[in-house]
Amino acid sequence: MKEKVVLAFSGGLDTSFCVKYLVEEKGLEVHSAIANTGGFSNEELEAIETKALNLGVASHVALNIEQEYYQQYIRFMVYGNILKNGTYPLSVSSERTVQALAVVKYAKEIGAKYIAHGSTGAGNDQVRFDLIFNIIAPEIEIITPIRDLRLTREQEINYLKERGVVADWKKMEYSINKGLWGTSIGGKETLTTNLALPEEAYPSQLKNEGEETITLGFVKGELVKVNDQEYSEHAQAIRKVEEIASAYAIGRDMHIGDTIIGIKGRVGFEAAAPMLIIKGHHTLEKHVLTKWQQYWKEQLSNWYGMLLHEGQYLDPVMRNIEKFLIDSQENVTGTVFIKLMPYRFLIEGIKSEFDLMNAGFGQYGEMSSGWTGDDVKGFTKLLGNQLKIYQTVQQRNNK
Amino acid sequence: MKEKVVLAFSGGLDTSFCVKYLVEEKGLEVHSAIANTGGFSNEELEAIETKALNLGVASHVALNIEQEYYQQYIRFMVYGNILKNGTYPLSVSSERTVQALAVVKYAKEIGAKYIAHGSTGAGNDQVRFDLIFNIIAPEIEIITPIRDLRLTREQEINYLKERGVVADWKKMEYSINKGLWGTSIGGKETLTTNLALPEEAYPSQLKNEGEETITLGFVKGELVKVNDQEYSEHAQAIRKVEEIASAYAIGRDMHIGDTIIGIKGRVGFEAAAPMLIIKGHHTLEKHVLTKWQQYWKEQLSNWYGMLLHEGQYLDPVMRNIEKFLIDSQENVTGTVFIKLMPYRFLIEGIKSEFDLMNAGFGQYGEMSSGWTGDDVKGFTKLLGNQLKIYQTVQQRNNK
Amino acid sequence: MKEKVVLAFSGGLDTSFCVKYLVEEKGLEVHSAIANTGGFSNEELEAIETKALNLGVASHVALNIEQEYYQQYIRFMVYGNILKNGTYPLSVSSERTVQALAVVKYAKEIGAKYIAHGSTGAGNDQVRFDLIFNIIAPEIEIITPIRDLRLTREQEINYLKERGVVADWKKMEYSINKGLWGTSIGGKETLTTNLALPEEAYPSQLKNEGEETITLGFVKGELVKVNDQEYSEHAQAIRKVEEIASAYAIGRDMHIGDTIIGIKGRVGFEAAAPMLIIKGHHTLEKHVLTKWQQYWKEQLSNWYGMLLHEGQYLDPVMRNIEKFLIDSQENVTGTVFIKLMPYRFLIEGIKSEFDLMNAGFGQYGEMSSGWTGDDVKGFTKLLGNQLKIYQTVQQRNNK
Amino acid sequence: MKEKVVLAFSGGLDTSFCVKYLVEEKGLEVHSAIANTGGFSNEELEAIETKALNLGVASHVALNIEQEYYQQYIRFMVYGNILKNGTYPLSVSSERTVQALAVVKYAKEIGAKYIAHGSTGAGNDQVRFDLIFNIIAPEIEIITPIRDLRLTREQEINYLKERGVVADWKKMEYSINKGLWGTSIGGKETLTTNLALPEEAYPSQLKNEGEETITLGFVKGELVKVNDQEYSEHAQAIRKVEEIASAYAIGRDMHIGDTIIGIKGRVGFEAAAPMLIIKGHHTLEKHVLTKWQQYWKEQLSNWYGMLLHEGQYLDPVMRNIEKFLIDSQENVTGTVFIKLMPYRFLIEGIKSEFDLMNAGFGQYGEMSSGWTGDDVKGFTKLLGNQLKIYQTVQQRNNK
Repeated sequence: MKEKVVLAFSGGLDTSFCVKYLVEEKGLEVHSAIANTGGFSNEELEAIETKALNLGVASHVALNIEQEYYQQYIRFMVYGNILKNGTYPLSVSSERTVQALAVVKYAKEIGAKYIAHGSTGAGNDQVRFDLIFNIIAPEIEIITPIRDLRLTREQEINYLKERGVVADWKKMEYSINKGLWGTSIGGKETLTTNLALPEEAYPSQLKNEGEETITLGFVKGELVKVNDQEYSEHAQAIRKVEEIASAYAIGRDMHIGDTIIGIKGRVGFEAAAPMLIIKGHHTLEKHVLTKWQQYWKEQLSNWYGMLLHEGQYLDPVMRNIEKFLIDSQENVTGTVFIKLMPYRFLIEGIKSEFDLMNAGFGQYGEMSSGWTGDDVKGFTKLLGNQLKIYQTVQQRNNK
Repeated sequence: MKEKVVLAFSGGLDTSFCVKYLVEEKGLEVHSAIANTGGFSNEELEAIETKALNLGVASHVALNIEQEYYQQYIRFMVYGNILKNGTYPLSVSSERTVQALAVVKYAKEIGAKYIAHGSTGAGNDQVRFDLIFNIIAPEIEIITPIRDLRLTREQEINYLKERGVVADWKKMEYSINKGLWGTSIGGKETLTTNLALPEEAYPSQLKNEGEETITLGFVKGELVKVNDQEYSEHAQAIRKVEEIASAYAIGRDMHIGDTIIGIKGRVGFEAAAPMLIIKGHHTLEKHVLTKWQQYWKEQLSNWYGMLLHEGQYLDPVMRNIEKFLIDSQENVTGTVFIKLMPYRFLIEGIKSEFDLMNAGFGQYGEMSSGWTGDDVKGFTKLLGNQLKIYQTVQQRNNK
Repeated sequence: MKEKVVLAFSGGLDTSFCVKYLVEEKGLEVHSAIANTGGFSNEELEAIETKALNLGVASHVALNIEQEYYQQYIRFMVYGNILKNGTYPLSVSSERTVQALAVVKYAKEIGAKYIAHGSTGAGNDQVRFDLIFNIIAPEIEIITPIRDLRLTREQEINYLKERGVVADWKKMEYSINKGLWGTSIGGKETLTTNLALPEEAYPSQLKNEGEETITLGFVKGELVKVNDQEYSEHAQAIRKVEEIASAYAIGRDMHIGDTIIGIKGRVGFEAAAPMLIIKGHHTLEKHVLTKWQQYWKEQLSNWYGMLLHEGQYLDPVMRNIEKFLIDSQENVTGTVFIKLMPYRFLIEGIKSEFDLMNAGFGQYGEMSSGWTGDDVKGFTKLLGNQLKIYQTVQQRNNK
Repeated sequence: MKEKVVLAFSGGLDTSFCVKYLVEEKGLEVHSAIANTGGFSNEELEAIETKALNLGVASHVALNIEQEYYQQYIRFMVYGNILKNGTYPLSVSSERTVQALAVVKYAKEIGAKYIAHGSTGAGNDQVRFDLIFNIIAPEIEIITPIRDLRLTREQEINYLKERGVVADWKKMEYSINKGLWGTSIGGKETLTTNLALPEEAYPSQLKNEGEETITLGFVKGELVKVNDQEYSEHAQAIRKVEEIASAYAIGRDMHIGDTIIGIKGRVGFEAAAPMLIIKGHHTLEKHVLTKWQQYWKEQLSNWYGMLLHEGQYLDPVMRNIEKFLIDSQENVTGTVFIKLMPYRFLIEGIKSEFDLMNAGFGQYGEMSSGWTGDDVKGFTKLLGNQLKIYQTVQQRNNK
């Protein structure tokens, strides 16, 4: 009886090669699986299944993990206003862990002895997959044909052609990775340090040249309302924002960052919905959170984003941080007004019952009944006390 | 003989009132001073001097502190990529401390017994001024007539009118504070939580509807070149960037933040040069600094910005942080390319001899000769070791 | 009808003076209250009540807040291993907030218009009390006779004597503040910078010159067992540890720290139980938590301790941090062995089902079957990748 | 012509095996080197050289790196009060990097093609050595016979015996690693989680049963005086402290921490001088540094200690942190008084011209002329402002 391998399958050249290779060279029974975080339509999933079966897999499955992805990942990226290096909403990197977890769970269920993925040896994804597989199922051996054999695209295409697999493998000028939380784009410019992606590289093109104001309604940090429409399912609300905002070609940028393996990597992305939701949520927080809540949220969220990016999602410190973040959202309820214009947006402001501004106390720049000039004098006198002492000590010693 | 008071004088209604009040009600010899951080032209300074003399000051002086302001403040805000709350380049707040230091130094030089400023009791500036004066010259008493008397504009105008001072005191619809590092704008919208400033509130209006690419040249973190022009004086380089970029109406936004006195404050700003310089500098750093340099720079810079904003510039921890920042800039040398378009800009990329990307080692997404697939397997095995142990312990205990 | 004032009453000279002063000079109806965090016996509480009634209060109440103090304060100081400046278990400062909250709640219940306390103007306690009273009941006015009148002990004694209150007010050589979480000690040495408290200043004297091993049993971070005795009430467990350990004169030290008002303060303390519990708990955590859990716990706990020390307990960031801390304790279950000797102790080790050491994986210093030498080579190759690139770039530029 | 290998040689069983193995099995020309950080006497170094030559090395060299070790490592560990996990002064781990750097520099000088060390595959040292060698000389190949061959002690002894090398290889009950900054001790107890090392495992036994006060004089953070003796060479001052204090059997403890390879490791140590110097220095800092200097020094120093421990010394962030630390020591000048007693010590206090306590301003617990009760009231009113607003907002929403 043949031994089973579960292959994380996307339908592209690399994983198509893997099917044939695992069947013919390794003599394994290949069970392909695709973990869908919300980026694929039913039609796309069916096309992928057909491809897999045609390539000779013993079975194929599409694992629907949109709910997990929202509840256990996107939710916290919103709570934490997570933008890697101040820029990138972890559009793709955050999907890899939830996908790896779904795949390894499936591999354990069907009693697979091996697990395979099509990563090369130069990116972050290989590390994310290997880490999760090693941690959750150290007994399952990992096979990575593309990485191990160091094959070129031509070699892969020839191998498949020789085995009767003929497909239009022509390399797209730009490699696109689309998910619920944004799309990443690689291409010849991202391999340089000085060129931006051209307009046409972005999947969403400018369709709306006017302007409009979108309102986002948050309850305890979660997006529940877009304009006047309430959403019981958060992923739907995100898709709605994306639909409206992507027509303005909003949310494009380049990310340059440190990979897990120490080299620098550069990638383009478009993420209209994530950018609006994060920036809107952040503005709401500036009104309802105290200074130190904002300070510590930022520290913990940056770290959370870093570990998530680096595949360390299973560290229990991530669960600890999530508890902090959930509690910090208690008052993050209100409406955010955002004006959309071609290629850009403007946070106009917010309304919230929990707003600490204009709460009936003093107003910035206006005199208040809450305190007197003498109170402020006392305040600054004691606030400056240590530095006054320090200054005196300095002068005494400099004499 | 009358006792001397030094008054921080701007020529506006509040400080004009202060002159008369200090002379007539307090019987003091008023010496007015304006500390110019680079926001005033010679004509403006002369007009202010004339006003002061007409109001009856015993002397007036303009203190030129542009050099100090750049060397001891702006420089570190650039090194630190400092944007308060992720948004605001501390356009005005960073000037107050250097101004207070210049004024108190002048007060000590001329042997003043008092020092006066026109702040109200509701903002940050009163605290910034009081703190510096208390720390540097605890022996000099602070007088703040506007704060102490809680006067309305009408009361101030009437008081001046009764004393023969007639001027066009009509309140501007928007209060504008212009400096070398940006302009802050207050108005009726900034007192709400949900309205943005209208287009016409911004001093710089869109003049250039085309697009162009500007190049910024940095040496050890400092801007020294704009397009092909080298600048020996950094303030000139900043002004050149502002001139070019403000024609695109770039760098406008709203800041909502925590004041030193605990209330929330909201202010608009435009800061074309600071936004381009900071974002360009930051992108360059993403290429030339290691991961942990970036991490700690961000921690320290955020803190630096917070203390600077809150008037705690004299804490010696600020000097300690500056040493860290200076050293971190050793390799921050290179050119940044930024495309300017109406209301927005795009960092196209950088060129640097110190770039850690494409340094002849592996390239992101491309296979490398620096390591093998087995190396990565070993790497992930040990990288996930603690979590694998943790997972095993969890499972054992959950049985 | 007289207006009511609630006075935080301890029975000492300052608060005794306050009773008479509030009754006679202010014409108020004085309701004294003492908030007991577990430091007072019933006998002591009765003696204090008698004093209050004799001085002329309208009513006296002892508020029992031991449970709140443990659940909402001590518990988190243990979870966080909180030692201020690496030394001081916040023995007394942590009590002030819970006491202030009990007193202000009582004042609101009985409809008091004023609230009074006996603090001087030179310490932390005045700030802690004022902060809580201002935040919870800004409508209640605060009266602080000792601080406002700047009275000397002699003046207070004379004032009382003239009003027929004769007591043995002789100043103790050392002022002692005893609570459930340790005792603080002030005296002439603590006003110097170079002298330690003498042996006799400490309330607990060495009684046991032998040695013994005490075992502390923790469940999810809380002390539940001392030697073989289980405790359903945590305060009882703490008292048991104190009883055993104080006989060895353990847990004495000096704290030098920054007060809320900017000056440096120095105080002695003895805290046998807190030191054993914290150090034992911390050692257990080193075995059961991951590296990053320990890292972030330390960051957050230090901050928590600082805000607690400075009377900022009501900042909602404190509640957010508590959620993190609670979650971090999930696996902090096990037994700690501590050898007690005169004046010192030694953590011998721990036993825990959740120990990440010796979990059947590799052992430090011994070869393991979990990975090979080649795995480590791959690991270090990629771990050093960025620095290798950096080094190359440096050399290239230094040529 | 034979190819050259440089072997880091200690004279123990593992590296003795390596000599023979590299000569006979690999056919290499072995050049042994020992990098002395101050732990070895001249006699010991000579004995090691003799061993090396007898084993058949082509040359042997002792690299004296005591100066580098103090200036570039110990100095910063003192500035940073570095105790890993709050306990361990990095006694041995801090030596490995400076040793590796000396060895790899030597290897480059003599044109070696290989570099070898005797580490096993289970500890931190292998990673520290490999990291440095990979970074500094990626062109030199690393050979680690013990790790690769997974040999037992018996196999090594037999191999040597067969080749005529007979020595007293009997395993010591405790493995001792002695250096300038303390001694680490491993043994059967450190492999358990619950047993402490016995008294006799420690190299320094109690010799002095009395007590004495030692004074340590610091100038800008560096130890320059012990009792009345000034030292121009810092290592000498450290040795003097060690000589005095080790007679009291001070500074013993157990460290349990996270290794670089993810497992937990436990080790005993004695470090009398480091503990006195660090604790004394830290106490001095509590007097002369501002609150935020202490806060940020602690953050950066902990991180510095962690990276140093983990072999990441060459990250340029370490140089950046060092600049911060150097600047923070500007005022850390003064004398510390420490009472030594059998097995323990007590910091009695300090004297410093830069002391911020007792600087002629207010004294903790005593009324001051620097501020009034009203000043404190104003201070607390504004300090509590945000929380008062928050409280009001909460109550309004909870109605």
